[in-house]
Amino acid sequence: MILNKFYVDDVIKTALLEDVNYVDQATAFVIPEDAISEARFLAKADGVLAGLEVALRVFELLDDNVKATVYMRDGDALKKGDVIAEITGPTRALLQGERTALNLLQHMSGVATATNRAVKLVEGTNCSIADTRKTLPGLRALEKYAVMTGGGKNHRFNLSDCAMLKDNHIDAGGGIPKTVATLRQKLGHTVKIEVETRNMDEVRQAVGAGADIIMLDNMTADEMREATDYIAGRALTEASGNITLENLAEKAKSGVDIISMGALTHSVTALDISMKIK
Amino acid sequence: MILNKFYVDDVIKTALLEDVNYVDQATAFVIPEDAISEARFLAKADGVLAGLEVALRVFELLDDNVKATVYMRDGDALKKGDVIAEITGPTRALLQGERTALNLLQHMSGVATATNRAVKLVEGTNCSIADTRKTLPGLRALEKYAVMTGGGKNHRFNLSDCAMLKDNHIDAGGGIPKTVATLRQKLGHTVKIEVETRNMDEVRQAVGAGADIIMLDNMTADEMREATDYIAGRALTEASGNITLENLAEKAKSGVDIISMGALTHSVTALDISMKIK
Amino acid sequence: MILNKFYVDDVIKTALLEDVNYVDQATAFVIPEDAISEARFLAKADGVLAGLEVALRVFELLDDNVKATVYMRDGDALKKGDVIAEITGPTRALLQGERTALNLLQHMSGVATATNRAVKLVEGTNCSIADTRKTLPGLRALEKYAVMTGGGKNHRFNLSDCAMLKDNHIDAGGGIPKTVATLRQKLGHTVKIEVETRNMDEVRQAVGAGADIIMLDNMTADEMREATDYIAGRALTEASGNITLENLAEKAKSGVDIISMGALTHSVTALDISMKIK
Amino acid sequence: MILNKFYVDDVIKTALLEDVNYVDQATAFVIPEDAISEARFLAKADGVLAGLEVALRVFELLDDNVKATVYMRDGDALKKGDVIAEITGPTRALLQGERTALNLLQHMSGVATATNRAVKLVEGTNCSIADTRKTLPGLRALEKYAVMTGGGKNHRFNLSDCAMLKDNHIDAGGGIPKTVATLRQKLGHTVKIEVETRNMDEVRQAVGAGADIIMLDNMTADEMREATDYIAGRALTEASGNITLENLAEKAKSGVDIISMGALTHSVTALDISMKIK
Amino acid sequence: MILNKFYVDDVIKTALLEDVNYVDQATAFVIPEDAISEARFLAKADGVLAGLEVALRVFELLDDNVKATVYMRDGDALKKGDVIAEITGPTRALLQGERTALNLLQHMSGVATATNRAVKLVEGTNCSIADTRKTLPGLRALEKYAVMTGGGKNHRFNLSDCAMLKDNHIDAGGGIPKTVATLRQKLGHTVKIEVETRNMDEVRQAVGAGADIIMLDNMTADEMREATDYIAGRALTEASGNITLENLAEKAKSGVDIISMGALTHSVTALDISMKIK
Amino acid sequence: MILNKFYVDDVIKTALLEDVNYVDQATAFVIPEDAISEARFLAKADGVLAGLEVALRVFELLDDNVKATVYMRDGDALKKGDVIAEITGPTRALLQGERTALNLLQHMSGVATATNRAVKLVEGTNCSIADTRKTLPGLRALEKYAVMTGGGKNHRFNLSDCAMLKDNHIDAGGGIPKTVATLRQKLGHTVKIEVETRNMDEVRQAVGAGADIIMLDNMTADEMREATDYIAGRALTEASGNITLENLAEKAKSGVDIISMGALTHSVTALDISMKIK
Repeated sequence: MILNKFYVDDVIKTALLEDVNYVDQATAFVIPEDAISEARFLAKADGVLAGLEVALRVFELLDDNVKATVYMRDGDALKKGDVIAEITGPTRALLQGERTALNLLQHMSGVATATNRAVKLVEGTNCSIADTRKTLPGLRALEKYAVMTGGGKNHRFNLSDCAMLKDNHIDAGGGIPKTVATLRQKLGHTVKIEVETRNMDEVRQAVGAGADIIMLDNMTADEMREATDYIAGRALTEASGNITLENLAEKAKSGVDIISMGALTHSVTALDISMKIK
Repeated sequence: MILNKFYVDDVIKTALLEDVNYVDQATAFVIPEDAISEARFLAKADGVLAGLEVALRVFELLDDNVKATVYMRDGDALKKGDVIAEITGPTRALLQGERTALNLLQHMSGVATATNRAVKLVEGTNCSIADTRKTLPGLRALEKYAVMTGGGKNHRFNLSDCAMLKDNHIDAGGGIPKTVATLRQKLGHTVKIEVETRNMDEVRQAVGAGADIIMLDNMTADEMREATDYIAGRALTEASGNITLENLAEKAKSGVDIISMGALTHSVTALDISMKIK
Repeated sequence: MILNKFYVDDVIKTALLEDVNYVDQATAFVIPEDAISEARFLAKADGVLAGLEVALRVFELLDDNVKATVYMRDGDALKKGDVIAEITGPTRALLQGERTALNLLQHMSGVATATNRAVKLVEGTNCSIADTRKTLPGLRALEKYAVMTGGGKNHRFNLSDCAMLKDNHIDAGGGIPKTVATLRQKLGHTVKIEVETRNMDEVRQAVGAGADIIMLDNMTADEMREATDYIAGRALTEASGNITLENLAEKAKSGVDIISMGALTHSVTALDISMKIK
Repeated sequence: MILNKFYVDDVIKTALLEDVNYVDQATAFVIPEDAISEARFLAKADGVLAGLEVALRVFELLDDNVKATVYMRDGDALKKGDVIAEITGPTRALLQGERTALNLLQHMSGVATATNRAVKLVEGTNCSIADTRKTLPGLRALEKYAVMTGGGKNHRFNLSDCAMLKDNHIDAGGGIPKTVATLRQKLGHTVKIEVETRNMDEVRQAVGAGADIIMLDNMTADEMREATDYIAGRALTEASGNITLENLAEKAKSGVDIISMGALTHSVTALDISMKIK
Repeated sequence: MILNKFYVDDVIKTALLEDVNYVDQATAFVIPEDAISEARFLAKADGVLAGLEVALRVFELLDDNVKATVYMRDGDALKKGDVIAEITGPTRALLQGERTALNLLQHMSGVATATNRAVKLVEGTNCSIADTRKTLPGLRALEKYAVMTGGGKNHRFNLSDCAMLKDNHIDAGGGIPKTVATLRQKLGHTVKIEVETRNMDEVRQAVGAGADIIMLDNMTADEMREATDYIAGRALTEASGNITLENLAEKAKSGVDIISMGALTHSVTALDISMKIK
Repeated sequence: MILNKFYVDDVIKTALLEDVNYVDQATAFVIPEDAISEARFLAKADGVLAGLEVALRVFELLDDNVKATVYMRDGDALKKGDVIAEITGPTRALLQGERTALNLLQHMSGVATATNRAVKLVEGTNCSIADTRKTLPGLRALEKYAVMTGGGKNHRFNLSDCAMLKDNHIDAGGGIPKTVATLRQKLGHTVKIEVETRNMDEVRQAVGAGADIIMLDNMTADEMREATDYIAGRALTEASGNITLENLAEKAKSGVDIISMGALTHSVTALDISMKIK
């Protein structure tokens, strides 16, 4: 798993403490401690798998006697009916981990599936699909990983690793050129500066100021084309705002480098995956 | 706020530590420490408001000089264009809290809005809409609160405060009557026992066993009616599985007491709310 | 262990960090790292064992080379002189874990022993013995588990999983019937409502309001009998207040379903168990 | 409060998160947010007060509008019927904090009361009463503070701030003189060395080795007198083991400096204090 | 303070819990609770101030009655004898916070002072001084902030916000061009790629591969000049390895953009600042 | 490892979460999950090794397949070129743990090396070298362990395990005799009292008051000799203030028992140790 293991374990522990306040009332008194079961993860809809290692880690943390056989991997296309993995271990652990594992797996696969749908719509262009900071508290790394797994790219993780200048910053900083200059003097050499622009005038200022990335905010496909033609590689270009699955393909043809979409993470439809315990 | 304050504060701190690793690069060097701004929360779509106190708490934790004027309250119906609240305070705090506050507010209002849509569809019946344990790690309380705010009811919070017997429990426990009896002897008097049933035979066994709640799993509206007629108030009845906005009204008319829907929390569409900083 | 493993591990880590600030000064410089010892847990008084898995987990967390042979299990009746378990492993781990393991084991067995004493006094009646929320911060789950181990039942775990209406709630809510009705509309279907009553008038109101559980607060055995006769199974009945080991048997014969006793957890006499390291 | 504020706050937050999982079901829907109440803490038994600031801090953390008027202070002798303090503030905060505040206050006052009983029994001798490490996980500082408040003294807080040599250490270290010498070379100059002794031979070795404190383990009053006469101020002396309220006075007269009693903290009877909300 | 407030508070709480295990033994019993004192922070050596807000926050967290008057600000040049700030408040809080506040202030000012010394040595060149990841666990943000305060720039914060390719990565990735290409496809558009080079051949490959930053590892000033001449602005250049205060000026003249120095944070000499309580 | 394992693990997890926010960008996409490498820890300067077990624990926590062969142990004298240890395991784990392991190992060995230099300078006298509370937040235990490893002794760990009376305490307490007497009555018998003195008058008072340790603050070697001659073993003596490597030997000859030096931990030069991954 390329995600930080300690982070993943903390998310899982939080979930399991939330879900089993002190005892699992149904399981504790009915399922013998030494009962062993098998369970199968099954795709009940088409999509892209993400979070399998995270889901399996749930059971491993509950009981290291749980063993898994994995048939598919993160990033694989799922067809309804696909068997994703099988696990064997103490029935109590399977029952207690089931909900947490599925909550994580379905959410992450939902993110990857939505991302992949967008990625497919821009195929054949130079445009990448990226996420945003519109994520849920404590789950950003899981969600960004899922975007990546679906073929998307990660925008900045947080406010510390890239400076994006919005109108409030630009107004306070004395206009685009001066604000970029101020920041360039202060920021480390690994931190890029992105400038939000709403029209060609601002685009020209951003290019002149040496912005690393220029965001074309809420522009039409035509405006975007004019902007990217003008910028001509002097900065990366990112489109954001009012982008839907319907207009995505057209906007991607404008020559923009990246289209970022908040909906990939803020409006997730869980991918239907079941866990059947035998 | 009726949510546990310490829990809410922990969620917010986690979010802000995730979003500002060490400094907000754009803000720190451009926005003066003593700059003051106003911001307005605006509904950009119709829905039900949930999470306003949580969102405002974000700013209060960042800087106790942020003051809010509140125009709407959790549970209120929002119309596109409604001004929800206005806040005034240090510009840095407004910029740093913006994303976290909106992520929480849009998600919680999304849950409340979806819940309310379902609640409206069952109006005129005896049926309530309830949530499930299909929630995201660490956010269950926020999500269950949002369901409540949208007019829904909360199913059990976790595996400790209600015993739900699934087929695995019933098989291990020696059938419905014996399993219920075993649990009744062990469980505290405040803990209800719910039995999952898939057909009339199991329904009859559950009634005979004295189950407090009988889940009618994946049944048609006709099957549900047969079951509720038979049960006749001897237990609460809950329907679950294959319930969509399309068939919800019909199923609610079957006489079932509760319909629980995972989608209320596992597949949330964020409600579009903006925060404009002047 | 039916307790949530992550919770138990957190309790143990807290204890060991509290007890070994940085080094165990006596052990670090005198006991060789590779020294191996055996230790024996021995009952030095009669009682009921509770917490053995928790106590053994202390050593497992300190050093996974510690191995245990278990002779008795939680819930077993201990006679003075009984050997409960033997462990073998690095001497340093045995010495560092000793105090923490015993503190937990003696406390939990003390709770189980006291509970069992009460349980025995009500044998032959329909009455169960239950705990309360009068527990120590962070230890509630351990203590409630110990009550269960001693043959008692767990009352609600916290303020979220059962609504108990005291006079303050009833006054604010407009009397028993109205308050119960208000809550019934708001609470999820898994949450029971318990009403505190001090006299027959209130008992009648509680029955009329459809309370799930009626608490008979500080009543004499005669008053309790009158109440339970009146209630006649329409609600569970619970007695609380002024109940001692002396009057317990008499009160239990009144027909009440549950007697709850705060002393089971708020006034615990540790059960004398020693750990002798050879 | 002389206890570390951050520690106290953490204990309280843990307790309140344990006690209010997400909402206080009875209070949230019945008690108006702006309702204000008064409450009174009342002694229902004689004893020594300890933990009042901790108990009041519970309410302050819940809502900083809660205000207290304090009539008695930690260490004061309580008579049944004494009014300890009165608080005024939001009713919801009073109801939610009640159980946690009382659990802490009754436990700490129970420890102080038991300590004070022992302290009174040794009045007129040179002997002090001390606690041990027989405390509950996470609560050691509260309990040791309560011992102090009851007139007792604190033994070492943990294994890092004093080296106590038990038979295992002495055997591994090559006898009393050699073990003490080894440790003296390693330990910092602020760390005292205490040696457990079971007979006069060991006492003599401990004195010869230059032990700072000599524990007289499980000795009779006569043996203790012989030992303290021999030691004659060359080391502090501590008695431990088989000490009860019955034999305490006699043992204290033996000339021993300190008598340490595990029961002060491992077997606490909560002091009966009520909180009545008007 | 531009540092994340929650992070800073957590560092301070950790420090104060470490430093006051349960009570401050000297202070608790001697200094009256209502005693008020003044204290003065005084420079006892020349240097650059960093961490003043962090140090003052220590006292604010201990007791919000502590008030400060600030005479100097982070980044100011300190001369021996300068009064930095004065605080007034409860004596207990001043005494308990003194050590923690000074430990933080002296360390951070030590980092800023060392950084500023290096920055002055490269004045008149285009070269910036940057830090590294050679920081102490949990303190990286404080240390990077101090580098910034001393006039230096921050290199990447961690392994997630910039990809630096060392020989192990390049070997595994199939050489510089292929490895950079692989990463460019995977990484988000805000993440720069830096390539470590040891000779001109690798420099040429890194330029050809389109690296954003080229590290010149352990090169002489002449080698650096050859490299920067060749690169000619096509990538940022960073020198690292074997750089001392002695050879810094010479190396900076080579035309390199950034010189990064681990010693700024891994080998800090605390700046002598005292806190005198009157 | 004699350090508390849970503490060490927490420090390491903090460091690894700080250093890998979500993915190690360079490693995740280039190094195959099943790649195995070897690495060697090599001394690049002379010094004293400290922290090897801590450094190796970093890799063990990242991946329990990492195996180590250890050639040297904490406390060993390192010569430039010495191979300290070799580890084998997943390349990803080696790359991700490298920086954290070295940061800890170099810092701890730096502390041990500086301590050992001071210890060597006082050889042949009765004087020990001790540390202070001038440590970095969260790292005190690691640093105090390193001092011990370098041959030094640990002063009190925190304000709870020894009472050191400074002028503020003495002024508030009514002079040295009265303050010591007050504390002696309050403090547990394991807690020593140390009194800071600045001249012979204060030294005499401290002896008269029965102080356990007398600190000679900022005295010349002659003043120290006069003081130790007067004290003549009636208390331990500790010198502090204005002690440098230059005057250390002379001051140690004054007969003082302990010399404590803040610089051992507040101004650490990391010991140059490399980790080369093959």
